[in-house]
Amino acid sequence: MEVKVAIDCMGGDHGVHVTVPAALTVARADRDASFILVGRQDAIERELKRHGGEPGARISIRHTSEIVEMDESPVAAMRAKKDSSMRVAVNLVEQGEAAACVSAGNTGALMAISRFVLGMLPGIDRPAIATVLPSLKGRTYILDLGANVSCTPEHLLQFGIMCSELVSSVEGKHRPTVGLLNIGAEDIKGNDQVKGAAELMRASDLNFHGYVEGDDIYKGTTDVVVCDGFVGNVALKTSEGLAQMLATYLRQEFSRSLFSRLAGLVALPVINAFKNRVDHRRYNGASLLGLRGVVVKSHGSADAFAFGFAIRRALDEARAGVLAHITERMAAIHKNAA
Amino acid sequence: MEVKVAIDCMGGDHGVHVTVPAALTVARADRDASFILVGRQDAIERELKRHGGEPGARISIRHTSEIVEMDESPVAAMRAKKDSSMRVAVNLVEQGEAAACVSAGNTGALMAISRFVLGMLPGIDRPAIATVLPSLKGRTYILDLGANVSCTPEHLLQFGIMCSELVSSVEGKHRPTVGLLNIGAEDIKGNDQVKGAAELMRASDLNFHGYVEGDDIYKGTTDVVVCDGFVGNVALKTSEGLAQMLATYLRQEFSRSLFSRLAGLVALPVINAFKNRVDHRRYNGASLLGLRGVVVKSHGSADAFAFGFAIRRALDEARAGVLAHITERMAAIHKNAA
Repeated sequence: MEVKVAIDCMGGDHGVHVTVPAALTVARADRDASFILVGRQDAIERELKRHGGEPGARISIRHTSEIVEMDESPVAAMRAKKDSSMRVAVNLVEQGEAAACVSAGNTGALMAISRFVLGMLPGIDRPAIATVLPSLKGRTYILDLGANVSCTPEHLLQFGIMCSELVSSVEGKHRPTVGLLNIGAEDIKGNDQVKGAAELMRASDLNFHGYVEGDDIYKGTTDVVVCDGFVGNVALKTSEGLAQMLATYLRQEFSRSLFSRLAGLVALPVINAFKNRVDHRRYNGASLLGLRGVVVKSHGSADAFAFGFAIRRALDEARAGVLAHITERMAAIHKNAA
Repeated sequence: MEVKVAIDCMGGDHGVHVTVPAALTVARADRDASFILVGRQDAIERELKRHGGEPGARISIRHTSEIVEMDESPVAAMRAKKDSSMRVAVNLVEQGEAAACVSAGNTGALMAISRFVLGMLPGIDRPAIATVLPSLKGRTYILDLGANVSCTPEHLLQFGIMCSELVSSVEGKHRPTVGLLNIGAEDIKGNDQVKGAAELMRASDLNFHGYVEGDDIYKGTTDVVVCDGFVGNVALKTSEGLAQMLATYLRQEFSRSLFSRLAGLVALPVINAFKNRVDHRRYNGASLLGLRGVVVKSHGSADAFAFGFAIRRALDEARAGVLAHITERMAAIHKNAA
């Protein structure tokens, strides 16, 4: 299925040096994907040439004059920078010129701009950020990861519904299981927010598993894990920190002595297979769910390999019709309630 | 310094098979430590004998007839089981017969019983659970891990003060740095609870670093990380789940083929050094802070090696006079405020 994706080429720590080669690589592998590269024309053209590409039918350039800085206030970025690469990429989705957009820029600004330009889907009060993590059973989706620092039970229910539709349409999984993150599996555990959400989820037509705990994310107990943005962000960042520490320790142990360096050489293919399997770059690309448009956020420090996965996520979501599925589901719920 | 510790021998998944040999091992290594083993006399005596030990001046037995089950309601355990090994171990601390107690039993019951029997230290509204985690720089203390699902800014300030005193007295670290767990380092980030706590911590005499994020726990950015019990519990359990998944993957890769099994043999000493360094059993033993007595909670599934670390933590805290330090600090704060 032919899909066109707008790419904010100036966002992230490395800008065009990462975004342009990533788009070229995906374009070469996926003949039905086309791209609008948004940003400084000269910089994008130079980078295209460096990687043996050029503008054409499947790769066009949209020149913009401004850049949203990584530490800029979301409100300032939204109000003052009408010609930023981020804003124009989102505009292209709103205007129907692109089916999705991808940015590695400032998360707060991307959320504020997307919400302002695209608006919310009917029945959804707040957008949420969802990502995929590896698990012992395959893949676990988790949301929210920081769009909402405090949520009502209704918000958590909506997150569950949106992500359930995301998983069923993108992963082709019928009625994915949904778990609610809590600090114990017993009914009496948790705060009022979580208890209220559990009640709503139980009464909904979600395939609700019940409460899950932090370790269930990586055990793969459920397909979807729902939590508020504060808790989700802490869980994700804590995981990043632990993984980095373990990787550092492993490296240190394998370079401690001549023997350990030799052992490291022998074990290299195995260690590489392991690293490959848990490579966080393969999970790059968080979905901003609830908006009237597909918006994918890449990690700011992503390299071209990682950014390619964020682009593929945008293509997958556009092709799977995630927005239509969420809209239909919300309409059905609204109709039943009326 | 001579210290006597009461041990709930019946608690945890393995009861006397873990608690008794662990106590024996610590008693043999630490000649100034003595123990009151609390639980079924015949079971404890049998286990002592099995490991070449016997009751004596440094190891006494206190027979009890009841056991708090792992899934029992805390309130029921507290009210109905006056002669449980857990209750009697805590009673021994209250009566001054032991300087500390250790249990691997039901966390909720241990918290409820300890709070009821021992009461709170002056100036502390709520108890908190603190533990140590490894970091790239050494060790990070984090609290609360689940005693309080919702906290006011004042509670978080008290947690910071208690843990600061714990680290300075047990680790001998002058004015340990304290970080407040948030989802961004900028002042505008976070919910009202966290913003309020930051204001209080900034105005206090804590060595307040400011906001930290999830990854800072393992980076070792601060000595202490403060959060509410819901967030802390999720961070800890998520870490456990990730570590288990990575360990499983590593094992799978090293047993995938004949070559990888051989590589695993060669790399075994290095892998073992790595495992040893991040062995969670070395970090077993969470402190129930804020009570008028030293109470240490071991992981329910701890083996004797892990349980030994929980016992050592109880000895360390009793010897360091943590309670006196917290009490003095709170009195000084109260005096300044008056």
